[in-house]
Amino acid sequence: MNVLIVHAHPEPRSFCSAMKDLAVATLSDAGHAVQCSDLHAMHWNPLASATDFLERSDPDYLVYALEQRHAVEHGTLAADIAAELDKLLWADLLILNFPLYWCSVPALLKGWIDRVLVSGACYGGRRFYDRGGLAGKRALLSFTLGAQAHMFAGETAVHGELELMLRPLLRGTLAYTGLSVLPPFAAYHVPYIDESARRQLLDEYRKHLLDLDRLTPLAMPSLADFDHHLHPLHHEVPA
Amino acid sequence: MNVLIVHAHPEPRSFCSAMKDLAVATLSDAGHAVQCSDLHAMHWNPLASATDFLERSDPDYLVYALEQRHAVEHGTLAADIAAELDKLLWADLLILNFPLYWCSVPALLKGWIDRVLVSGACYGGRRFYDRGGLAGKRALLSFTLGAQAHMFAGETAVHGELELMLRPLLRGTLAYTGLSVLPPFAAYHVPYIDESARRQLLDEYRKHLLDLDRLTPLAMPSLADFDHHLHPLHHEVPA
Repeated sequence: MNVLIVHAHPEPRSFCSAMKDLAVATLSDAGHAVQCSDLHAMHWNPLASATDFLERSDPDYLVYALEQRHAVEHGTLAADIAAELDKLLWADLLILNFPLYWCSVPALLKGWIDRVLVSGACYGGRRFYDRGGLAGKRALLSFTLGAQAHMFAGETAVHGELELMLRPLLRGTLAYTGLSVLPPFAAYHVPYIDESARRQLLDEYRKHLLDLDRLTPLAMPSLADFDHHLHPLHHEVPA
Repeated sequence: MNVLIVHAHPEPRSFCSAMKDLAVATLSDAGHAVQCSDLHAMHWNPLASATDFLERSDPDYLVYALEQRHAVEHGTLAADIAAELDKLLWADLLILNFPLYWCSVPALLKGWIDRVLVSGACYGGRRFYDRGGLAGKRALLSFTLGAQAHMFAGETAVHGELELMLRPLLRGTLAYTGLSVLPPFAAYHVPYIDESARRQLLDEYRKHLLDLDRLTPLAMPSLADFDHHLHPLHHEVPA
């Protein structure tokens, strides 16, 4: 398969960067084609702005998503966005690899999401969740964090359940565009652990990567369960 | 009271920018001192990087949060961060005003969070949640979005409960630093509604702002309910 790794860490010698290198090596060795967008190294511009469009549908008033749609239709996305969108459309698997900042992606990676997941290609109108533009592809979050696993182990934990804390990424972003979302790989407590614990974490990540086909994707909404106005057809909370 | 509004929208004539202008006017007229950081107008740099520190605790290997702590101690934060941190410490109320991008803040505003909520001042060690560095202050999210209210009305809704989707912001960011988090103001369906509906939304926002003292802050974890290793003392999910 084709794999796109989008990586955002300011320190090339960080454990997070080692996870990125491991993913490139492991997946290449397993016979996959791998591209990596190292956002710091690329000097990626995270700012969504009017200059993202070579021509404007409305030059006087910027509605970002509408200009995305226009630019996809007319092939007028800025070159840096078009290049990333090409990689994304080429990929069968998208890996976002990052240090967790404020229970989310760093701004640099958020700016990749804001600018590259364009309306008109990745979603738009009634094309979202299982009808999203990226349906048929898979996605994986792999990230480092300072906290320990028990701090995210269910709703009684100090930070609550990990997957709920990650909902805007797992559901609101990846699943929204149609991606099938694999269970995330969280490298806990990284700043505080020794070399042998770090090696063990890398071993676990390697196994996670080689095991992707055996992982069950997270449960996500299906538009078949909602009416034309997106009111739920059933009123039980899905399991 | 002192109010800091941090605003991030690329279109000065947007409804979101009108919400920011309304908040400045409403709160000033009510006798409060208001400062506004308009991140697009300021050309705010959202990228957390080594250049955020005038001197380094470890010049060879960047651990961002550790350098934040060092820089707070030694007064060596980059000038743009120090200026924003001063405004934040001056404020009794922080308002983040933005268009919801991917169920979160735009990258530009995420970069304000990543860089300004520094370890050593806003949190650090065992100073978080109700023991956080910003305890005693309040925070409010005010944002525009394309979706309609019923799409976030509880866990059976197509996107689930709004406050769960916003958890990394409400709980993982604002409450984590000790801020008392007021119920957010969501301006739904903004791109699709007419002038009179927009005027009505602005009226509702004005009322929300004038009513802040009567709003009940959201329930958040208290460290008193966790042991020294942050394991829960009780195993019921709080109501």
